[in-house]
Amino acid sequence: MTIARWFGDRIAAFRFEDLPPEALRWARIGIVDTVGVTLAGASERCTRLAHAVASPSAGDALVFGRRERMKPSDAAFVNGTAAHALDFDDCSNTLGGHPSAPILPALFALAEQVHASGREFVSAYVAGFETQARLAHAVNFHHYDKGWHPTATLGVFGACAAASRLMRLDASQTATALSIAASFASGVKANFGTMTKPLHVGHASRNGLIAAWLAREGFTAGDEAFEHRQGFFNVYNGAGNYDADAAMRAWADPLDIVEPGIAIKQYPCCGSTHPAIDAMLMLVAEQGLTPEKVERVISRTHPRRLRHTNRPQPKSALDAKFSVQYCVARALAQGSVVLSDFEGDAYANAAIQAVMKKVTAEPDPLAGRQPDHFGAEVVVELRDGSRVSKRVARAAGRTSANPLPDERIEAKFLDCASHALTTDASERALAALWQVERLDDIAGFTAQMEAGLKPD
Amino acid sequence: MTIARWFGDRIAAFRFEDLPPEALRWARIGIVDTVGVTLAGASERCTRLAHAVASPSAGDALVFGRRERMKPSDAAFVNGTAAHALDFDDCSNTLGGHPSAPILPALFALAEQVHASGREFVSAYVAGFETQARLAHAVNFHHYDKGWHPTATLGVFGACAAASRLMRLDASQTATALSIAASFASGVKANFGTMTKPLHVGHASRNGLIAAWLAREGFTAGDEAFEHRQGFFNVYNGAGNYDADAAMRAWADPLDIVEPGIAIKQYPCCGSTHPAIDAMLMLVAEQGLTPEKVERVISRTHPRRLRHTNRPQPKSALDAKFSVQYCVARALAQGSVVLSDFEGDAYANAAIQAVMKKVTAEPDPLAGRQPDHFGAEVVVELRDGSRVSKRVARAAGRTSANPLPDERIEAKFLDCASHALTTDASERALAALWQVERLDDIAGFTAQMEAGLKPD
Repeated sequence: MTIARWFGDRIAAFRFEDLPPEALRWARIGIVDTVGVTLAGASERCTRLAHAVASPSAGDALVFGRRERMKPSDAAFVNGTAAHALDFDDCSNTLGGHPSAPILPALFALAEQVHASGREFVSAYVAGFETQARLAHAVNFHHYDKGWHPTATLGVFGACAAASRLMRLDASQTATALSIAASFASGVKANFGTMTKPLHVGHASRNGLIAAWLAREGFTAGDEAFEHRQGFFNVYNGAGNYDADAAMRAWADPLDIVEPGIAIKQYPCCGSTHPAIDAMLMLVAEQGLTPEKVERVISRTHPRRLRHTNRPQPKSALDAKFSVQYCVARALAQGSVVLSDFEGDAYANAAIQAVMKKVTAEPDPLAGRQPDHFGAEVVVELRDGSRVSKRVARAAGRTSANPLPDERIEAKFLDCASHALTTDASERALAALWQVERLDDIAGFTAQMEAGLKPD
Repeated sequence: MTIARWFGDRIAAFRFEDLPPEALRWARIGIVDTVGVTLAGASERCTRLAHAVASPSAGDALVFGRRERMKPSDAAFVNGTAAHALDFDDCSNTLGGHPSAPILPALFALAEQVHASGREFVSAYVAGFETQARLAHAVNFHHYDKGWHPTATLGVFGACAAASRLMRLDASQTATALSIAASFASGVKANFGTMTKPLHVGHASRNGLIAAWLAREGFTAGDEAFEHRQGFFNVYNGAGNYDADAAMRAWADPLDIVEPGIAIKQYPCCGSTHPAIDAMLMLVAEQGLTPEKVERVISRTHPRRLRHTNRPQPKSALDAKFSVQYCVARALAQGSVVLSDFEGDAYANAAIQAVMKKVTAEPDPLAGRQPDHFGAEVVVELRDGSRVSKRVARAAGRTSANPLPDERIEAKFLDCASHALTTDASERALAALWQVERLDDIAGFTAQMEAGLKPD
């Protein structure tokens, strides 16, 4: 039994009926979140350039955010780049990366072509998610630390497994598809901080789909592409730096999408600013704070987090994403932190600059005594001389044990989707995806989404 | 000065006018040989499946061997797979792989679109060849031994550099293109011996072209994609297993295509059988040997080579490629060893089976005293009781110091091209490629080639 075949057996046998309810719930969340960020990322420059290079392309697969169809592999490339363009997509601690962005663009493109049902779509997604997570157990975190971008180098297997399942490949074909994918894995961290990072995801999504397609057509590949002396584990990690058995230790027991599950990013800015934003939003909600009532705000985070987020005067939209002062000021001023806060010169808005002057960032004096470094405390001195404060241990949504309330997931989706869709269409898409498993045909959903695009 | 930029400066400044005459000569040979094997490989099953998966595709780039055009990146994918489908394409000792197969499919597809001249085409090809060779000096042979397939993992940079030159990218854009390509390099040896090996080449060719295209459109990538702690050298080879300075030691001094140059495979079978075939063909030519005159043949090769080529009764076409008895029998019976000898059940032909019975393979008794293991001796006992023999130190064409005579290169091309083109068209294509630098427009050449396809 080769490793590729071990996975092939499980992927080919993966059934919607076997999913526990929590898996379905998390699958819905992952799909809602990924569709949202893909719609928001569709107009980013990296996506537009990837689209230009992939054009022309003739096919039935929707390019998210455009009135345009492409060949499925090209659509996976463009939509995969869009899904990660804002770095706002869901996260996995197992992967050390983003689990859904490489899978879902390939799966949407394929589902439209084969007219897959929502149930087939969900089970393929969870099978792909599980495959890349199990492989992550074999190679992480050496793989991550070495410089591979696991979202791409493991995501290609997730996309491949999901596509194989949706194509109903048998166990042997699926094993071949995974072996082909082993020759497609790429993406180095030296390209982080540039457009090439989201490009990795488009590349992985496309190639995972192509690997499945080739296997379906009868292509051949090595039987031992993972465990071979010159296979994925040895070549990508090196002898002694992986544990092949760990990949096969606990398939679906529990499903990785359930435990440890998906982390949802609430705000489109650096994760290290999130707990302070959470704390400020709670104070706004609980105390009815407005900038006028506030004399001074002190934001306290762990020194490790403060180092890259202490930016009292951001000079660009990107800079603003790393400015805890800016993010906390936005939370106070408008009771939310949304995409448009990081677009154009929103950061330079005079009113928000005035609020920012009230915000000071400093190291959390409790940092040394905290069990971890994910928390923040926000202290507000009011004009009336009183003082309120809020401490959060970690931002909501960052673990499945501390999930985001549905309304926050919905608010994020609607903010993201509104970049491409009308308000009505955004709400219809959200309603449809909350019941994705009831869709008769994914192609019907994407057609509805296309019809709901905002006028050019 | 980053490494990517160092290369970018040289690639952008690379000019046809600066090529020494030997470089032009070897470029012509590389192009003739690659076009030939691509035409022969076009009908192989792996190529047909790659074509099926890349279809439909709308564009101007010829799919070799078909009356069909595709988008350049798809044509590079299909033609790149075809170029390596038979493993009959040129070799480079620097690369530990095949230097032209990843470059030329990308370059043909692009050249047709931009209507490049033969001179532009040749200089782009040599620039790409030099780029991948210089990078090979930094990473080989650890890279090769570890399990990477350098034809793909270095070829992607060759294709990218060549495409960048043909697009006339400036030095900075070219550096960006190479950095993007660093996130596209893939291909593991665990997939050798399967269709995925030639697929690596199509994948590399396509992705090198896409990287250049993205850079031209204004995409961004890391400045230090090679030397970064999490860049190509560290991630693919590991600290201590590469020499970054070696990449930048001797650009074009001499050009790698000139010294050590290109090895041309003369026969479409295992390289370990080639010196014995050479020896037998010399005896046939010099002595007028025919099977009827021959009582017995003894083929002597180094034990290291004999181990996998001692196959007195091949059971399949693939098996026949590794049977020195079969190959030597073909050389004696027909004065040549050609593609059709390894197709279908040609190996089972009764006449050739009768000749094979006369051939014995044994270890070369001089093996221990030879300076290397590339030679062979063939001893023939004639019916008239006389005995003739021939010893060759290494097969012709395997080093640039021992080049194939032009007529052998031409015979190989015509044999290969005849799989797709009429005899007339094969000869016209050959004549055009021998003067490739005089072509006004590469698109004119490919149009002529398409028009010369054999009837379906």
